[in-house]
Amino acid sequence: MRIKLTIEYDGTNFYGWQKQNGFVSVQETVERAIDQVFGGAENVELYGAGRTDTGVHALGQVAHFDIFDEILADTWRQNINKLAIAINFYLIDTGIVIVKSEIVDDYFHARFSAIMRYYKYMIYNRPVRSVIYAKRAWHVAKPLDAAVMNEASKYLLGTHNLNAFRSVHCNAQNPVRTISEIAVYRDDDFVNMEISAKSFLHNQVRITIGTLKQIGEGKYPPEYIKELLDKQARTSAGVTAPPYGLYLTKVDY
Amino acid sequence: MRIKLTIEYDGTNFYGWQKQNGFVSVQETVERAIDQVFGGAENVELYGAGRTDTGVHALGQVAHFDIFDEILADTWRQNINKLAIAINFYLIDTGIVIVKSEIVDDYFHARFSAIMRYYKYMIYNRPVRSVIYAKRAWHVAKPLDAAVMNEASKYLLGTHNLNAFRSVHCNAQNPVRTISEIAVYRDDDFVNMEISAKSFLHNQVRITIGTLKQIGEGKYPPEYIKELLDKQARTSAGVTAPPYGLYLTKVDY
Repeated sequence: MRIKLTIEYDGTNFYGWQKQNGFVSVQETVERAIDQVFGGAENVELYGAGRTDTGVHALGQVAHFDIFDEILADTWRQNINKLAIAINFYLIDTGIVIVKSEIVDDYFHARFSAIMRYYKYMIYNRPVRSVIYAKRAWHVAKPLDAAVMNEASKYLLGTHNLNAFRSVHCNAQNPVRTISEIAVYRDDDFVNMEISAKSFLHNQVRITIGTLKQIGEGKYPPEYIKELLDKQARTSAGVTAPPYGLYLTKVDY
Repeated sequence: MRIKLTIEYDGTNFYGWQKQNGFVSVQETVERAIDQVFGGAENVELYGAGRTDTGVHALGQVAHFDIFDEILADTWRQNINKLAIAINFYLIDTGIVIVKSEIVDDYFHARFSAIMRYYKYMIYNRPVRSVIYAKRAWHVAKPLDAAVMNEASKYLLGTHNLNAFRSVHCNAQNPVRTISEIAVYRDDDFVNMEISAKSFLHNQVRITIGTLKQIGEGKYPPEYIKELLDKQARTSAGVTAPPYGLYLTKVDY
């Protein structure tokens, strides 16, 4: 029986989603909590939709796993929405919470069945830093022109070679991606970006907002994005924005 | 020379605004930081606009203090906006930040000159708790009807005896207060209340939202607020909502 989990986490204290020897990951922490619910009757392997980096948050990460033991599967089939509550008991004070647990068919794959991923990036834009939003948004002191950033962002809509907008460590063979939606808007002291695509390159969202920030400061005109898209040079785009302003908000299937 | 400070703080780690022997308060932490900026040449006393309780946050608390030393006053008069930056250096990692520093005339008093105080209360309304907003909003699992809460809140507008809406420890002689604005609205999973008045009774905002929450759950009709206002009985209103959903957002002079 295949289970789909929707997961929220505060990325602050994790070395990202993916399991790594010697580092505390979200994936392993959740796997261990599920193992405790099942009393060791399963050795759960969790597959996530997005491998978020160290410090990146999630409001709607999705993951799946299988229950192979038939008695265990029968027990939970009747109460599948209570599985989230049971797992959450073992996640208290970890900075992770399971928002929803559902049964899905065996063809469902959290990573490969995803048709759209949604990210939000939050900038806190005022002269002094914030203590309320300290680990929730990137503090940019210089006033940003959100309208100009929004205008610039529209060059990214559609299908492009995004080689300029990925990490030098990105090992995707194909740098072409399709951005379905992108928008930048001001909300009081916040300047937020929302972006969605079927899939993203490594650090793509953080390099995108890092570049748009430079445009919002007046360092480059909006057309600079078009230039970067044409050049396709890996190192020409702006700085990589810090992880703590980034949220994986939703995954569609 | 009198200085006005606008202060933001995360109330989580403080025993409220007001100085108390043996407890870490916002007031004392800021006083000590200012003392450090002045190298001990002043023994600063800070007066705040609102004595926020343990755990309550502020985005726009206001406080004032005097610089008596004339040389010190002359030094900072030219660079008064930099005083905030200087104080913030000694506030790193405290959960407090000075948003603004200004010179005001000697008649200005942070507490007594205030003509309007603004508070916001945030409820996180979905079945499971949140880790991202854990110390930033009150988690209410049962679905709330924000429209009904908003309707009910309007009974509080204007001048009323608010005896039913104050703490049993409130020692204000006069329980009559004037609420200038109050509104409840939904914003995705949040149900927020904004309220403003020249002054408030002890725990008034938290008892108000605690009562409106019961109305939003369907436990009482909106007219219940009117009943409480008529009864004026201290213990008849709803529960006192937890402090970590409450923000002192602004003070007008």
